[in-house]
Amino acid sequence: MNHDTIVALATAQGISAIAVIRLSGGDAIRITQKVFRGKDLENQPSHTIHFGNLADGDRIIDEVLVSVFKAPNSFTRENSVEISCHGSPVIVKEIIKALLKRGARLAAPGEFTKRAFLHGRFDLAQAEAVADLINAETDNARQAALNQMRGGFSREINQLREELIHFASLIELELDFGEEDVTFAEREDLRKLILNIQSFTSTLIYSFDQGNVIKSGVPTVIAGKPNAGKSTLLNTLLNEDKAIVSDIPGTTRDAIEDEIVIGGINFRFIDTAGLRETEDVIEALGIERTRDRMKKASLIIYLFDLAQATPEEIHADEDMLASLGIPFIKVGNKVDKADQKTLQALRQDEFVFISASNKTNIQQLKDRILSHFHVKAIKTGDVMVTNLRHYQNLLQTHESLDRVMHGMDNNITGDFLAMDIRQALHYLGEITGVITTDDLLDNIFSRFCIGK
Amino acid sequence: MNHDTIVALATAQGISAIAVIRLSGGDAIRITQKVFRGKDLENQPSHTIHFGNLADGDRIIDEVLVSVFKAPNSFTRENSVEISCHGSPVIVKEIIKALLKRGARLAAPGEFTKRAFLHGRFDLAQAEAVADLINAETDNARQAALNQMRGGFSREINQLREELIHFASLIELELDFGEEDVTFAEREDLRKLILNIQSFTSTLIYSFDQGNVIKSGVPTVIAGKPNAGKSTLLNTLLNEDKAIVSDIPGTTRDAIEDEIVIGGINFRFIDTAGLRETEDVIEALGIERTRDRMKKASLIIYLFDLAQATPEEIHADEDMLASLGIPFIKVGNKVDKADQKTLQALRQDEFVFISASNKTNIQQLKDRILSHFHVKAIKTGDVMVTNLRHYQNLLQTHESLDRVMHGMDNNITGDFLAMDIRQALHYLGEITGVITTDDLLDNIFSRFCIGK
Repeated sequence: MNHDTIVALATAQGISAIAVIRLSGGDAIRITQKVFRGKDLENQPSHTIHFGNLADGDRIIDEVLVSVFKAPNSFTRENSVEISCHGSPVIVKEIIKALLKRGARLAAPGEFTKRAFLHGRFDLAQAEAVADLINAETDNARQAALNQMRGGFSREINQLREELIHFASLIELELDFGEEDVTFAEREDLRKLILNIQSFTSTLIYSFDQGNVIKSGVPTVIAGKPNAGKSTLLNTLLNEDKAIVSDIPGTTRDAIEDEIVIGGINFRFIDTAGLRETEDVIEALGIERTRDRMKKASLIIYLFDLAQATPEEIHADEDMLASLGIPFIKVGNKVDKADQKTLQALRQDEFVFISASNKTNIQQLKDRILSHFHVKAIKTGDVMVTNLRHYQNLLQTHESLDRVMHGMDNNITGDFLAMDIRQALHYLGEITGVITTDDLLDNIFSRFCIGK
Repeated sequence: MNHDTIVALATAQGISAIAVIRLSGGDAIRITQKVFRGKDLENQPSHTIHFGNLADGDRIIDEVLVSVFKAPNSFTRENSVEISCHGSPVIVKEIIKALLKRGARLAAPGEFTKRAFLHGRFDLAQAEAVADLINAETDNARQAALNQMRGGFSREINQLREELIHFASLIELELDFGEEDVTFAEREDLRKLILNIQSFTSTLIYSFDQGNVIKSGVPTVIAGKPNAGKSTLLNTLLNEDKAIVSDIPGTTRDAIEDEIVIGGINFRFIDTAGLRETEDVIEALGIERTRDRMKKASLIIYLFDLAQATPEEIHADEDMLASLGIPFIKVGNKVDKADQKTLQALRQDEFVFISASNKTNIQQLKDRILSHFHVKAIKTGDVMVTNLRHYQNLLQTHESLDRVMHGMDNNITGDFLAMDIRQALHYLGEITGVITTDDLLDNIFSRFCIGK
């Protein structure tokens, strides 16, 4: 495959010390040479860096460093060039314009990674992990994406798929013999293989929930009666964490004020309207929404106001919580002002006692929050599925194989068996990209950023 | 000089295909090696690129490309490393943390460029041009900064300064001979040299106004009677230009809605309250402010409403404009609805006739705007001063030399002459950094971005 040459800014936009413009394609080095005043790039070894002027005709745009990568020793396995210029949007624009004039074309989103995939540098699941890696918002998400990019479950899937193909061909061979009623495919061996595959897919399917926690954050609702201290707790959690993440410049994330990383896991904390009986229609709607959110949460942090609530009120709320069927943590707030009688009436080992405003016992609360998420399992870097597409294909594989099993139980004919096996092979193959369509690829790579 | 090793993100912050982390200092390569799983970097030639894993202990953070630059063949003239990783803020943070743990230190703003200056890679005026280059908002500003970075007026200044030093030593030699009344320094030659220097500094001082236009944008006021179409014209100019700049992604500049680049020059268009007699106190304040802005503008675009204004009103406004002493362009708006009698009463060659809402003749207006700014002179890339610090030092040099001339005219003694010459030498020397203080350097480099 000899593709045309694409170009894009590969670093983030904005004013900075340096910016990197990336080219890939058969003519990448030749096109760069046309605007480069320095050494003869085509005669330089791969993986070398060269200083010179970047010029559009007589007009020097900038002094740059040009890195040369020769096919197949590059990310895309094509000839590639990285131009490191001063980090000014004006300079980046002028250099890209000069390269476009000389025959390069602006890259589509994900086009560099797509070429790497098309040239066999990695499979589709690994290519998708590149995007996940870039978008990782926590260190655990980064780790999960990196594991996937470095191979992940691809090898196992391909191996199991190979074995399944073997059975599929044997069964289709039976079909060729038509009326003769021969059996090439040992049904018991097929059964074993299918159970083996399903055990593997089950693990991966199961890991998706955990993986999703890593990738998208845990929806965690902070609930409780009015004035229990919900917003104060949210602020305390936010402030504590802001202080932690801001020790390295450039890591503070704006706008999403209610996401907090605790122990490498991203929690989306949802502050809610206080729960109480009310005649007010608007307030009632707010409370309705709170109940709705509690039901959809992965975890509820329920605040009790130890300074106000009676033991009876607390027990009533405990019953309500238990009836929801959602994991919850019972938090006794305002412990410094607690009524001693109320305290004694509680099963104290079930509570975390804090003072949100005095920031008392916040770390203990965080530990309790984390304990709900099998942190150790996540931290081992086990292979897990974090990609919705993979998850859906695994589910569909699983279902197809269920039908194969069911078919064998009911002695259905080989042609139906073969059809369901083909289905399973299709879904498995789409995960790693052994089977692809242009639509599938477009759909996947259009979600990448430009320059990747 | 063997400096400690500094590290910083060199590319813009944000999610992107790649990010580049830069290290510089005696131990830059050694420290990188401690977190790099790949080739032995210290034994690699300068300007080579190496693929490997970046790991903190057993924990792999990312797959990276490491570029090695060996002293003195680097930007800073120290050992330097550029780590090209996936463009995720999480990965950048983890890698920098790992490097800090191994002995690197977070770089201060401008510290890389400061080291390049301290190691004699370029003089101070050139170092400052690096920051101007990165912050260039137009192609002309980029060109002016690049010229300065590539040498600019530094050589001439240093040469003139050398000659002045020669005279200063001769005059101080005279002082050593005390009472003997010998003259080593030919006063006429000194006079010639000073005139020579002053002619040079005058040109540079004069260029500052033009340079400032390039760097900061031309304050251009759009004024006129209420409903003359001022805001419509601004929108028309903005929209036309937005379409032009957006053909390359990443160049659209948010927030500063009223800056437009025309012919490479940045215009800051200022829409104003309509001018009319009014009893309304608030409106009168707005009109007062408009008059104030008109007086401070570099150019006034004055709109006449051809559909409404009488010839008498137009002539009155023309007189008012002429009395301001600010360059102006008379624009007849709503030409499509113009009263023919009004049109005939005007000196038509002095007007640009447009329709802001129909976008008629907008290009002609732009050409007229540009004609006010000697575009050709700017485009030749002549050396010019765009830096306020240089401008101030040139002014002070000029004044000191005025005092030397005045002193010679009045036959003042050699010690006073020598003092004023020393002053001039000081101000000249500070421009290129022959003379520096820590305060001066801190002040200059603290304005850089981190990573540069």
